[in-house]
Formats: sequence, C-alpha cells, structure tokens
Amino acid sequence: MVQLRSYLGGQWVAGSGSPQTLLNPATEEPLATASSDGLDLRGALEHARTKGGPALRALTFAERGARLKAMADALQAERDRLLELGIANGGNTRSDAKFDVDGAIGTLLEYSQIGNALGSKKFLVDGEGIQLGRSARFHGQHIAVPRHGVAVHVNAFNFPAWGFAEKAAVALLAGMPVLSKPATSSAMVAHRIMEVLAGKKILPEGALSLLVGGAGELVSLLGAQDVLAFTGSGDTGARIRSARNVIEYSVRMNVEADSLNAALLGPDVEPRSDMYELFLKDVVRDMTQKAGQKCTAIRRVLVPQTLLSSVKEDLIELLSTVKVGDPADEDVRMGPLATASQLSDAREGVARLGGKLAFGSLSPFPHKGFFTTPVLVESPGEAVHEHEVFGPVASLLPYSENPAQLVARGNGGLVSSLYSEDQGFIEQVVMDIAPHHGRVFLGHPKVELSPGPGTVLPQLVHGGPGRAGGGEELGGARGLAFYMQRVALEGSRPVIQKLTG
Amino acid sequence: MVQLRSYLGGQWVAGSGSPQTLLNPATEEPLATASSDGLDLRGALEHARTKGGPALRALTFAERGARLKAMADALQAERDRLLELGIANGGNTRSDAKFDVDGAIGTLLEYSQIGNALGSKKFLVDGEGIQLGRSARFHGQHIAVPRHGVAVHVNAFNFPAWGFAEKAAVALLAGMPVLSKPATSSAMVAHRIMEVLAGKKILPEGALSLLVGGAGELVSLLGAQDVLAFTGSGDTGARIRSARNVIEYSVRMNVEADSLNAALLGPDVEPRSDMYELFLKDVVRDMTQKAGQKCTAIRRVLVPQTLLSSVKEDLIELLSTVKVGDPADEDVRMGPLATASQLSDAREGVARLGGKLAFGSLSPFPHKGFFTTPVLVESPGEAVHEHEVFGPVASLLPYSENPAQLVARGNGGLVSSLYSEDQGFIEQVVMDIAPHHGRVFLGHPKVELSPGPGTVLPQLVHGGPGRAGGGEELGGARGLAFYMQRVALEGSRPVIQKLTG
Repeated sequence: MVQLRSYLGGQWVAGSGSPQTLLNPATEEPLATASSDGLDLRGALEHARTKGGPALRALTFAERGARLKAMADALQAERDRLLELGIANGGNTRSDAKFDVDGAIGTLLEYSQIGNALGSKKFLVDGEGIQLGRSARFHGQHIAVPRHGVAVHVNAFNFPAWGFAEKAAVALLAGMPVLSKPATSSAMVAHRIMEVLAGKKILPEGALSLLVGGAGELVSLLGAQDVLAFTGSGDTGARIRSARNVIEYSVRMNVEADSLNAALLGPDVEPRSDMYELFLKDVVRDMTQKAGQKCTAIRRVLVPQTLLSSVKEDLIELLSTVKVGDPADEDVRMGPLATASQLSDAREGVARLGGKLAFGSLSPFPHKGFFTTPVLVESPGEAVHEHEVFGPVASLLPYSENPAQLVARGNGGLVSSLYSEDQGFIEQVVMDIAPHHGRVFLGHPKVELSPGPGTVLPQLVHGGPGRAGGGEELGGARGLAFYMQRVALEGSRPVIQKLTG
Repeated sequence: MVQLRSYLGGQWVAGSGSPQTLLNPATEEPLATASSDGLDLRGALEHARTKGGPALRALTFAERGARLKAMADALQAERDRLLELGIANGGNTRSDAKFDVDGAIGTLLEYSQIGNALGSKKFLVDGEGIQLGRSARFHGQHIAVPRHGVAVHVNAFNFPAWGFAEKAAVALLAGMPVLSKPATSSAMVAHRIMEVLAGKKILPEGALSLLVGGAGELVSLLGAQDVLAFTGSGDTGARIRSARNVIEYSVRMNVEADSLNAALLGPDVEPRSDMYELFLKDVVRDMTQKAGQKCTAIRRVLVPQTLLSSVKEDLIELLSTVKVGDPADEDVRMGPLATASQLSDAREGVARLGGKLAFGSLSPFPHKGFFTTPVLVESPGEAVHEHEVFGPVASLLPYSENPAQLVARGNGGLVSSLYSEDQGFIEQVVMDIAPHHGRVFLGHPKVELSPGPGTVLPQLVHGGPGRAGGGEELGGARGLAFYMQRVALEGSRPVIQKLTG
C-alpha cells in the first residue's frame, strides 16, 4: 500500500508512528496511509520563510503569474490521473471530480492573468497619492507588500484539488510561500499535485510545501508575519482561533466554516415557468453534487406557502431519478460520503433537524461504502437555522411573509440565492440579506450555462460573516490583501514617488 | 461632586453600586464619579440595532456626512470647555488637549467630506462589474452594505475626544450605530461631548450611545452582525478576542494595541544638518507630548554607532529644558501621567528595560500628582523590543549594520520613522520594515509643518500587524470596510445593474 509522504523543507519526508489509512469510500478498500508524526514542522516553516519568501518577493507579479500558469498546465497534463484519484479516494463521480480539478485549473489560470495584468511591480500601489498638508510636498501613499511569513492553508476534505489551488494561487501571486495541509482522508489528490509540481520544479525552493497527515503543533508555531487560512468545521475554526499564539501575535486568520445557505423562490414565480424549473434544477444539483458535501450547497429551501406542495412533489420526482452508488460506475449520479464519520454525522444531523423526511431514508445500505440517499426534510425544527448537515440533505421551509428574516436566522452564510423576476421584491430581499452573506446569487433562466449558487468563481469573493467564519477569499485581486500588509507611506512627495515608481 | 451618567437607549442613566472616582492627575483632586453597575447593556445594544441602525441606513452617505459636519461644529463651539476638561481630567497641557480635541474635529470634518463625495448612495459599489460567462449577461458586481449590528468602540484613556471621534465618524458614515465606551479615568471629555451631541439631537435616535464606567458583560452580548473596535493594551485585547461569543459568532474585531515604534537615523545624516535637527525634534516631541502616552510615540531611537554620543548629548540637552508640572500652569511643557497605576506601570517598565538612564529619574516627585521626568534609556536589554513603556520614555539603540532587522524585532508596530536623504538606503529600509507596520514616516526637513510620526491622520491607515493588534482604522474611505459587509452579486446583468443603480 502506498505511504503518502509530506513535502517539507524542499524534500519528501515520511512521518513515523501509526499512520491513518485512506480508503475508497465506495468500497472501503484501503488505498494509502499517511502520518505526520515526528516531522520537523518548525524547520519546514522556517525554510518557507527564509527561502521561499525572499525568492517569491524577488519575482514580479507577472513572473509569479507565469508560475501559476505553469502549475495550471501541469495539472491539465495530469488531469486524467487526478480525476481517477478523486473518484477512488474522494467518492466523487467523474463529474464531481472534474468540478474539483477543473476548478483548480481555472482558478490558477484566473490568478495567472491577474498577475499578468499587475505586471512588473513587486508590490501593490493602493489608491492615489494624497496631499496631506497645505503644500503638495507633504504626501501620503498607501502600498501593500507581501508579508514576510508563511501562508499556512488548512483545507477541507471535499475539494482536495480546488481547495489547494484556490488558496495557493492567491498567496503565491501575493508573494507569500505556502504550506498546504489537505484533509488526510482525501489527501491523495493534493499529494499527487505536489508530486507533479515538485517534479517539474515550477516554483522556487521553499515556495510550496505539503503536509500530509495531522496538523500536530503546526498552528502553535505561527507568528506575527504568518497567515492561516482554514476551511472546515466551525468547531475546529474556533479551536484554531483560540490558540494562544494566534491571539498573542495577531496571526492573521481567514476562516471559512459552516453555512446554512438558503435558496428562496419568489412569490411571483409560476410553477412550470423557466424560473421555477431553474430553481428546482439548482436545488437538486446542490443536494446531489459531491453528495451535498459543498460548503456552498443549498441547505434551506424557502418557498411561498402556496407553492409548498408543488415544489415538494417536483423535488421528490427529480430526486427519485438520482442513482446512488459506486462512482466508478458511469451511470451513477451520486457517490458515497467521504468517510464513515461523515456518514454518521450526516445521519445524526438529519435526526437533529427534526420534522419528517419528504424524500430519502436514513437506513444503512445493504453493502459496503459510506452511502446515503438524498434526503429532503419537511417541517424541520429550529435546528434548521443552526445546524449544517454536511451531506445530500436540504430542508423545505414555507414562508408567508418576510422570507429575508428567515434567511437571516442562519446567522451568517456563504451564499444565498433568490429566484424571482419581481425587481422590487429582489431589491428588498437583496438589501435585507446582503449583510449576512459573502455572495448573493440571483437565478435567471436567461443566463446560459449558469453554474448555480454552489459554484465558487475566482472573480467573486467567497466567505461570509458570523457562522460562516467571517472570512473572505478570492474575489480577483481583492484576495491578495489577506497575504499582504497595507502600509501608509508619509513624507516628502518626491521621495515617495521615487519609491513607488 | 459630579456623577457621570451613561447615555443608553436614548436616555441618560446612572449606574448603581460603588462608583470609580475620576481625578485630576496633577493634583489628585477628585473631579467626578462613574459607575455602570446595573445598567441594561443588552437593552442598549438592541435599541441601537433596531432604532439607530435602520435610521442611519435610511440616510445617504452625504446625509450621514452632514451629521458629522454638525458634530464637528458642535465640538468646535464647545472647544474651550473640552480643553479645560482635558487639562483637568487628563493631565494634558493645553497643547496636548488641543491635539486631542482638534484631532477629533478634524477627523469628523474629513469623514464629512468623504460622505459628501460618496453622495446620494446608501451602500458602496465595490469595483467594476465583471463578465462571468461567455455571454455578457452572466454578471458579477461587488457591493458593500452596512452591517446590521452595533459598532462597539472601546477607547483608551489617552485620547478621550479623538478616540471617540475617529471611530464614531467612520462607523456612522458607514451606516452603523455606535456604542462608545471611553476609558473611565479620563471619561469627562467624552461625557461632555455626548451631552453636547445628545442635547442638539444631531443624530437619529439610537445612532450614538455612551457607556461610562466598566464594560461589564458588554463584549459577551455581541453577535454576528456586531463589530468591536478596541484600542488599549495587548493583554485586554487578547482577553476580548478570546471571548467565547466573539469566536463562535465571528464578531468582527479591530484591535489597536502595543507598539514599539522606532525612529531610525540614517548613516548619511550629518550632525547639525536640518535632517538631524528634525530627527531630534521629532524624538523629543514624541517623548514629551501627552507625557509620552501615545500609541504612536517613538519608543526605540536607532542611531548609527558613530553618532550615538552626539545624539545622546543633544537629546539630553533638549530634554533638560522640558518643564514638568501641573499643566494648568502655562509654562509647563509636560504634565503628569493619567493615573497612579499608569505611573507605577511606567516605572516598573523602565526597570524592565534594563540598561541605564541617560536622562531622567524614577524618583517620586516631592508633591502630589502622577509625575515623572522624561526618561532616556541607554544600553537596554532585549525587553526594549518586547515591552512598551507607556510614558515619556524612549531607548537609545546604536546600530552598525542592518537596522531594519532591529526595527523588525518589535514584532509588528503602528508606525516607524526614517530620517535619511540616501534614496537607496530609504528604499531598502522601507521595503524591509513595511510588512511590520501600518505606517512608515519618512522625515524630511523640507516638509513644512510636518506633524511627525506620532500624529495619526484620517487620510492614512492607522494600525499594525502582530504586537500592534493586527488592525486597521481610518485611511479615508478604506476605514468604512470594517463596518460593512462586502458581498458579491451574481446573476443577470440587467437585474444587477438596476439594483446597483
């Protein structure tokens, strides 16, 4: 069986101790082992800070962007193998695996283009120069420079390729070295990506490291110039955020955690209309794609009371056509959950929601694998606004008035979506729900090839307040700010203008 | 004796229990009492959220800006009384008190102008619209909307007027209601400001509240839409940041804490040159203004080894002319520290720095009041890079090479300053120290009326990484972001363009 190693300090290293076994979640067949016990994390971070950081900062944005392009090309060349690993180790259908891998490649390409556009600078000039006194000589100019630490990325199990790439692309373009830690259970994809990138020596030494296995003392080793971007559960996020050194040294953190994303059908929408069909399609896609294991998936389906029975009936009909099984079979539309504990968490979560099952069942499957059916809950309890069930599970919620208030009860989310053609209703709802979200998706049947609310695009910010962790990633060049320090230069205009070029 | 009340829920309310007594720090004469025991903080926050928030959000930026202008005018009309209170309750010289009060008025005016420039919008449009698909119809646009909570401001004792105004101006312009808590020991200035503003009914009901006395359970009552801006010690900042609800609900926090600001004299500077004299003047001003009780004050004075004895001699000569005493006397140049505990902390801090005193003494004064001389330390120990002494205290540090590395040992600061005319040296040092700071001040003798590094200007960001708390305030319109939620709108272009106007 393959023993996955970590790439730290510019070399492949193996942990000692008893390893974790990575499985095929459809068959429970062991595929690989991983351990990070005994690895020199302090040395790895220092190598990234002292070798990778200066090397990246010596490059222009365009040069860093060119490295991202080379990374995208390398992943493209390895695409088939990465899809296979996603299917085997992630429980992904081929379509799910493409969503992950192609998302990774697309994000690298997008940031490569941003680098190209930023050109020959090595730091950002932020806004216009400012006259500070009566005379034009007293001058201010904000700039943003790469931080001198290491960017630690702790990723979730559900997007081993995209999660790696969307964080790494932004950090590397900003000029910070990356130490990426994939979730262990699905680490084979990220591990293969690291093998490819290290083999081709696309990045300067120390610019990219990969820790496979437990995080150990990693977080406790971070200091004032380091940053930590975490995607995962709210509980783990809270634990990291409470770490003594994180608080004492103001380690800059970005957390992307739980979210009870809502899809809201407007009262103006007629059954069978194009808008209605789009709404159904988006709900079913979000429930079943990656077996609902997307932080952006629709969890709460808000429909006018008058449309409740119609929507319920139609969703049941659509969900009943979804074939669940081993994603290695081509006609399977939904694979298993990623691990046994994800499956038991999802089952417990459905029980916690209360109400009853309009579709699906919690019964174990009569064969191996971490399978569940899609589950549509009706008449759930208050937990529907408080507890994220990370699986193919959504709840139907009827409303008669003020649906925005219902959406806001999620207490902060990544994305909610609105399906309506009543501009007045749209404006009212958007303004009411916007402060609670990082993104608001407005469904419209005339938008061709719309990916729906569940797809994160590199051009738009991803993150959300409150329960969602209070973070923000991506958003084009906006994402760079997290990895840079904004600093005001104050003094004599000619001196500052020479400095900023 | 005056009993200071709080302005909460739209009315003046008095705490019960045993109050804290506010003193004149030059005479130790009791001036007022304050207590917040038993006040309904939960009700006050809810009043701000439900009355103040909607009322502010209904105003355009220009209308909010007009309220800030009216606030500035009201403070200007009350200026003499505010200066008197600053002198009596803050230990300020008249010049110190002007620095505080005029800084408050200037910041309100600056944000009033920003509001005017933002005009008739009620939310911000962030960046250009983005084509997301092959067709132009699939469109993205970022906007920033006011958060639906309350902005809680916890201010430090040293700037009761400016600290109140610089935070309130930005929050109110963004569209968030404010609950401001001044440090109790010097609260008479902020209390008088609230009396004036409430009396003139400049702001909508619930838009501005003042809590005088201890913060009690205030922090524990904050939720996902609230924000908390704190200025004060790193220890208190860490305690607030660790609060369970702050972590669980991702309460957005801005911390501005300790900072070991450096002033760096370049090796090219000749004694007696204009640059040299400017450097001395800035160091002495920062050591003595407000008796060194400024978060931006120079704490570490870095000079080339070859210039050490010259700089030391000249600083001693300048410091020996500073008359210390009751700031009610017009010829006094430096008043007392703010409280007995500030004085004992400063004395302990000097002992902790190690080394020896090149100027000044730790001996008690032979009369009442919390007085100390200015203190110039030479040959300090490692604590000089770790411990901020919040008083008229600075340390001399010679360097022979790589002064930027010495500056960086402060592990994150608000501002450092550089005095050199060697452009190559300036560029090298600025790029090396920039990631560790929120502002870099470049001294130049040809900049007339330069306020020096210790003055925070509303046009430039204020804050710093690491030890300084990792925060950012002001910076013109940049400051609004903290009080707003950035959200990406994604969907059909005509729908979004109608929404954003």
